[in-house]
Amino acid sequence: MTVPYDVEVINVGKSPTKHPVPQHEINRILVSLAREGKTVVRLKGGDPYVFGRGGEEVHACLEAGIDVEVVPGVTSALSVPALAGIPVTQRGVATSLLVTTGHAGADAAAVAAMASGATVVFLMGVKALPGIVEAAQGAGCAATTPVAIIENGTTSRERVTRGTLADISRIARETGVKPPAIIVVGDVARPGLLASAVAATPDPKGD
Amino acid sequence: MTVPYDVEVINVGKSPTKHPVPQHEINRILVSLAREGKTVVRLKGGDPYVFGRGGEEVHACLEAGIDVEVVPGVTSALSVPALAGIPVTQRGVATSLLVTTGHAGADAAAVAAMASGATVVFLMGVKALPGIVEAAQGAGCAATTPVAIIENGTTSRERVTRGTLADISRIARETGVKPPAIIVVGDVARPGLLASAVAATPDPKGD
Repeated sequence: MTVPYDVEVINVGKSPTKHPVPQHEINRILVSLAREGKTVVRLKGGDPYVFGRGGEEVHACLEAGIDVEVVPGVTSALSVPALAGIPVTQRGVATSLLVTTGHAGADAAAVAAMASGATVVFLMGVKALPGIVEAAQGAGCAATTPVAIIENGTTSRERVTRGTLADISRIARETGVKPPAIIVVGDVARPGLLASAVAATPDPKGD
Repeated sequence: MTVPYDVEVINVGKSPTKHPVPQHEINRILVSLAREGKTVVRLKGGDPYVFGRGGEEVHACLEAGIDVEVVPGVTSALSVPALAGIPVTQRGVATSLLVTTGHAGADAAAVAAMASGATVVFLMGVKALPGIVEAAQGAGCAATTPVAIIENGTTSRERVTRGTLADISRIARETGVKPPAIIVVGDVARPGLLASAVAATPDPKGD
């Protein structure tokens, strides 16, 4: 990212295991700098309101009497499946889409959505995968329900691992699936949904 | 939109009641022009895979042996609530988000999501609102569950109508809510969630 030389940049970036600057401190910095009369841009990856804690930051600013303009972004919950060839909705296949964090497994809404054939996107769900699978099967989801796991989505290191509720936990273990990854459960994750099996066969020459 | 003078523009735009060019014809145009060797851009509002029928168009192209690059967009399901001050997820308030079409009412996934406290965004749900409310209450949702209806979201004609499951159908009827509108059901639609009631009070001078 290039910014003009006179712009002060404060990195409060998070990684899955490291939150170097706690949320309340981020809120405090935003308010404090705005009160100095500065124009403050809080730049986030994805969409600020899709598990981005943007609401907490806006709340802190509004409570302090500071005006905020929110610019929606492209959430990884939709863009990562899209670039992996998975449409989160598709006429005749899935007419509802649920997005959830997944680090605590599948909540009641996610279980019901999987059971009713909706597409369910789990962010941060790799560690909870066995629990998610168990909850889905306990709710009566077919063992053949497709599951796709997209690691490092949209990057050059992207890897898509596919299976079904019956075998995805074993496959993920065997292939060493690791965070960051997005899990998609539902018929839209079926291999060949967008292209027939013939068209989807990799070129044997590898190009 | 400005495009270079030598770019051929084919308008296949849809409105809620008019689909001047049927989907199969759109698919045919894409394949036909690509086969002529042209670079074809299929420009859509929102995200092509969130009820945008992008999957059907990609499928038609891939089956015809035509490569496709998909560029994710900003879906109105998230951006319209955001610009109306409603964060679709918020720590401690809603940890799952369901998006559904809503023109046929609330499907099983939507009903379960509302009942479990997830945020539910209905696109194209204005006519089905009474049925959505009835389904939610039948599933045990509290009558006090907040509901917001955003007409003409993100435009200068945007209007936000708020209520609860108990009264939103009456309010929508009385205020003459009309499509296009997005309905948000869940605690994130509570007035004052991002700013306290005091801070949210309109300035009496109207500025």
